[in-house]
Amino acid sequence: MKAKNAIYAQSGGVTSVINATAYGVIEASKKTKKINKLYAGRNGILGILKEEIIDTSFEDLKELKKLSHTPGGVFGSCRHKLKDPSKNIREFERLIEVFRAHDIGYFFYNGGGDSQDTTNKIAQFTKLAGFPVTCIGIPKTIDNDLPFTDNCPGFGSVAKYIATSTKEAALDVKSMSNSSTKVFIFEVMGRHAGWIAASSGLAQSKENSAPHLILLPEVPFNEGKFVKKVKEAVNSDGYCVIVVSEGTKYKNGEFLSDAGTIDSFGHKQLGGVAPRVAEIVHKKLKYKYHWAVSDYLQRSARHIASQVDVEQAYAVGRAAVEYATAGENAIMPVIVREKTKPYKWRIDKVELSKVANVEKKIPKKFISKDGFGITRSCKNYLNPLIQGEAWAPFKDGVIHTASLKNKSVKKKLKNFKAN
Amino acid sequence: MKAKNAIYAQSGGVTSVINATAYGVIEASKKTKKINKLYAGRNGILGILKEEIIDTSFEDLKELKKLSHTPGGVFGSCRHKLKDPSKNIREFERLIEVFRAHDIGYFFYNGGGDSQDTTNKIAQFTKLAGFPVTCIGIPKTIDNDLPFTDNCPGFGSVAKYIATSTKEAALDVKSMSNSSTKVFIFEVMGRHAGWIAASSGLAQSKENSAPHLILLPEVPFNEGKFVKKVKEAVNSDGYCVIVVSEGTKYKNGEFLSDAGTIDSFGHKQLGGVAPRVAEIVHKKLKYKYHWAVSDYLQRSARHIASQVDVEQAYAVGRAAVEYATAGENAIMPVIVREKTKPYKWRIDKVELSKVANVEKKIPKKFISKDGFGITRSCKNYLNPLIQGEAWAPFKDGVIHTASLKNKSVKKKLKNFKAN
Repeated sequence: MKAKNAIYAQSGGVTSVINATAYGVIEASKKTKKINKLYAGRNGILGILKEEIIDTSFEDLKELKKLSHTPGGVFGSCRHKLKDPSKNIREFERLIEVFRAHDIGYFFYNGGGDSQDTTNKIAQFTKLAGFPVTCIGIPKTIDNDLPFTDNCPGFGSVAKYIATSTKEAALDVKSMSNSSTKVFIFEVMGRHAGWIAASSGLAQSKENSAPHLILLPEVPFNEGKFVKKVKEAVNSDGYCVIVVSEGTKYKNGEFLSDAGTIDSFGHKQLGGVAPRVAEIVHKKLKYKYHWAVSDYLQRSARHIASQVDVEQAYAVGRAAVEYATAGENAIMPVIVREKTKPYKWRIDKVELSKVANVEKKIPKKFISKDGFGITRSCKNYLNPLIQGEAWAPFKDGVIHTASLKNKSVKKKLKNFKAN
Repeated sequence: MKAKNAIYAQSGGVTSVINATAYGVIEASKKTKKINKLYAGRNGILGILKEEIIDTSFEDLKELKKLSHTPGGVFGSCRHKLKDPSKNIREFERLIEVFRAHDIGYFFYNGGGDSQDTTNKIAQFTKLAGFPVTCIGIPKTIDNDLPFTDNCPGFGSVAKYIATSTKEAALDVKSMSNSSTKVFIFEVMGRHAGWIAASSGLAQSKENSAPHLILLPEVPFNEGKFVKKVKEAVNSDGYCVIVVSEGTKYKNGEFLSDAGTIDSFGHKQLGGVAPRVAEIVHKKLKYKYHWAVSDYLQRSARHIASQVDVEQAYAVGRAAVEYATAGENAIMPVIVREKTKPYKWRIDKVELSKVANVEKKIPKKFISKDGFGITRSCKNYLNPLIQGEAWAPFKDGVIHTASLKNKSVKKKLKNFKAN
């Protein structure tokens, strides 16, 4: 019997190492005899639904190897969320139609919490429908909020970027602070969990040094306490570095970024918690300030990726294929921390049904008593994840990345419009 | 006769390589017998006026060597501008008082255009006052706007950071663009000259690829043409990357960042051209967008400095001391491009009187016909400046930087309040 084909898709916000995971999947798929061709969904699961499928077998090995230092999602990604089959049987049936048409026996879905949920549903549905497809979820999220895995591929590199950028910018503002800018506000990603903001704490050379304040979504924002703490920092160090998570909220649940600002037409202004925090600093303390919003830069900064993160991203991709071909189904490879000093990790697995829709926020013991910093135990947790500099190769002064053909498989089915 | 002391000060916005210049000054000062001690002004010229002077001779050589990979200004900087002696003889007289008290024969001032002007004035004034001090300006500015020098130390590293960050973020937005974010707006520094924004053009893999639009202060912003071009990029590539200089202006001279936005209290909102551009994209085209403002991150990103820039920053520092001890005065070392391919440069000098208050903007031949990009000759100019990766050493996952003692020289004079 001819081996079945496999299909891999990238889902949700991309990371600087998701392509290292893709490479792990590709390499392991080439190695096993149990997988014939490895396909990829163009632009994530939307591509599978639309039968827009990439055949990875046309790629040169030389280019494929560059995936481990290419940020973004090389096959494209999307934020399309499949609803429950009971509410949306159409899309599930379409998936089976596509899987059947292209002789797919394995589905690898590389994403965050929502994607793991989807992967589990597809596993169950294909089984019930009599066309069982082995479905493996592969963890990926800069937010580091997946449960059961010690950490999430993608996070370590952002953490490294944020820690180093915070340290660098702190040296900048420090040198100007005597007579110019005294407060620097650095907005980072993390809508629900503050892991990214927390990682800036690794820039601290000693207690209470820069970043002087870390604003986390886990800690309700209290303007009075905030202003007091900023003042204290300026009084003691001469300057103050604030790292603020985009998801920082007031006690009533309102995001800081949603508060207050309207444009000249009276419309609510879109985005940016950093300018909002700057406004508070300006109004209450009159300090000169600067602010930065790193947005996509942080999650695509492959040039300063963590070596540990790159290795783990690759490992979960490879493990997904190995588990699948060993007969596992509806599971997700996870990273297990065996030891913190020296750091040792291994890959294990967890059932997808357990993973779905659980968000891992920063535990209380990781947050300092005043709510504006991280504890020693948080640093101990984070520290191993940013170890090693996986410098990307540069060409002509700029980061060098893969350039794939992404050749389409010929369509066999009628057009389909996703929901 | 005992050799005179020298004093070095950092001025204006710092860069990721200004400390490499400091190291060049320190090393060359140690080598020559014509300089006794090398002092540094704490927080720039303000420190000299206040007699807050650092004695660099207490530093360990091991730490000093780390200056070449330490961003920020290690002795502190300031934006204090000395007025003309005719209007402000008090500060000039104070300088002489401090120079005399500490037996200063050489003054090295490391800054941009204003600082070069100041250095020249101090040279003239000390001569007229009968206490001649050899004054050498040392070029430094991320803005790359000093005349006579082919380029300015500090710029190449920002250019490299911006080009790589643009390429990385473009790969990110590209992967999401099919069904999510289509436009990415990246705000960079450059209030008067667009060199930094222009350098993002080095990220282009081919004509009309990302960054699709570069908005320069040299080109008046035309909303209609802008909207049309963004639409064209999205139609052809599926996404659009816009790099915008903070100094982008309307035809009437009004900065985009000043236009329109007020906060909930009716106050003009402070800063940020990226959100303003995002607003236009949102209103006119309804595309989903993201924006980033790299602010201090860009000029402190020592982890991704250009090797050429680090070498040139060091070279101008060393040359300043060599010129001074060879009898030169009121000059600034400059970088001369001898050849573009392969890149060859050498150090020469220019009289400070010529440098003062001339701003080098982007010439017309470097800007594409439609005003939204850079030409091949601009790329040829910029390309050599970002060559080589001067990776900084990391310690425990984060960039490792120098930690100086910055020991103060005992004060001998009365207190002084700068203007």
